[in-house]
Amino acid sequence: MPRAVLLLSGGLDSTTLLAHAVSEQFTVHAMTFRYGQRHAVEIEAARRVSALYGISDHVIVDIDLRTFGGSALTSDVAVPKDRHDDVGIPITYVPARNTIFLSFALAWAEILEAGDIFIGVNALDYSGYPDCRPEYIAAYERMANLATRGGVEGTNRIRIRTPLIDRTKAQIIQLGLSLGVDYAATQSCYDPDASGAACGHCDACHLRLKGFAEAGVKDPARYV
Amino acid sequence: MPRAVLLLSGGLDSTTLLAHAVSEQFTVHAMTFRYGQRHAVEIEAARRVSALYGISDHVIVDIDLRTFGGSALTSDVAVPKDRHDDVGIPITYVPARNTIFLSFALAWAEILEAGDIFIGVNALDYSGYPDCRPEYIAAYERMANLATRGGVEGTNRIRIRTPLIDRTKAQIIQLGLSLGVDYAATQSCYDPDASGAACGHCDACHLRLKGFAEAGVKDPARYV
Repeated sequence: MPRAVLLLSGGLDSTTLLAHAVSEQFTVHAMTFRYGQRHAVEIEAARRVSALYGISDHVIVDIDLRTFGGSALTSDVAVPKDRHDDVGIPITYVPARNTIFLSFALAWAEILEAGDIFIGVNALDYSGYPDCRPEYIAAYERMANLATRGGVEGTNRIRIRTPLIDRTKAQIIQLGLSLGVDYAATQSCYDPDASGAACGHCDACHLRLKGFAEAGVKDPARYV
Repeated sequence: MPRAVLLLSGGLDSTTLLAHAVSEQFTVHAMTFRYGQRHAVEIEAARRVSALYGISDHVIVDIDLRTFGGSALTSDVAVPKDRHDDVGIPITYVPARNTIFLSFALAWAEILEAGDIFIGVNALDYSGYPDCRPEYIAAYERMANLATRGGVEGTNRIRIRTPLIDRTKAQIIQLGLSLGVDYAATQSCYDPDASGAACGHCDACHLRLKGFAEAGVKDPARYV
């Protein structure tokens, strides 16, 4: 079975992504980041999810993006609640986060000789982050094949796989349910309480709740 | 003065790069990585060098590339000595290292609103690493401007600056000497002894010694 590196946050999207990659017969090597995020409870969700899928190779990579600041997700800046205005790229954007995550995934893929890197970015029901768009992903893939031994020598071309990129949140949920995903195990909220209960009011909760409503399914997550 | 992020390893190339960026009137923010390299003594060299240039903002970023292995520089695999055969990409290559380093620099540049990222890659007297070539750097720059807020909004275009890329090692040394670089403060060896003395036989030492010989100058570094 072909190997793939998969970025797993423990949220709705990356968990659906994992179910999809497993259904496509990949041997998945999962990678999660402890990057100083205020919602570090998502790491426990990632562990739960990878255990559910019997992933034997799951690394938690420690990088401290608080060194730089610059985001509500890695600092004391308040996470916006019930945001209705379209203000462009919001304060929850973490500078270059997907670029950093993909770069670690690329290193691991090169060592594993895995040709596929799965990332659960979504450019439809998303928060307006620049590093979730198809043109960014295409540019990353092109760079990756110039950066690596296997890309240059032609022995291991890298593909950045984004099967969720053009689906609505409701379509992602429907895909996941068709694959048997247990969304109770997942964690999406940017600002959960100490027990891990979701706030219900940040952008991530809004997108999730809207997705479940449109899919006509009750969200099994625990809310404050 | 414009801001720049500069990747500083404390070696010959990045120290010359720093002298060059300072001479070009950039306010330099230096970034060094403790990534599990066996030659961690280079971090002390980076600290010496940034102090010599009065860099007030110098971050040491901790990332552990030993999680993956895959290189003689981050594992117990022996560093090759007195290599004369051209075997393509050598075992000292660290998978995706420059991609990871540049990605952290990109995050910091975005937060600082610095438009320039300096990296001391060299495609002439180099070890054959894929992530040192001009086509890789161009692809990285293109990706970076699709990844970031400032790149997308046009308020902070990112330039990856590689002023050393087409110079021989001797030319780099001559440039540095013309800028007053003290090469005794720098550290190039992949496999120094406990005191920090260079081995004189790894690829990095060979390239350095050849460069000084061609420049007609004695290398002030300490060798075993």
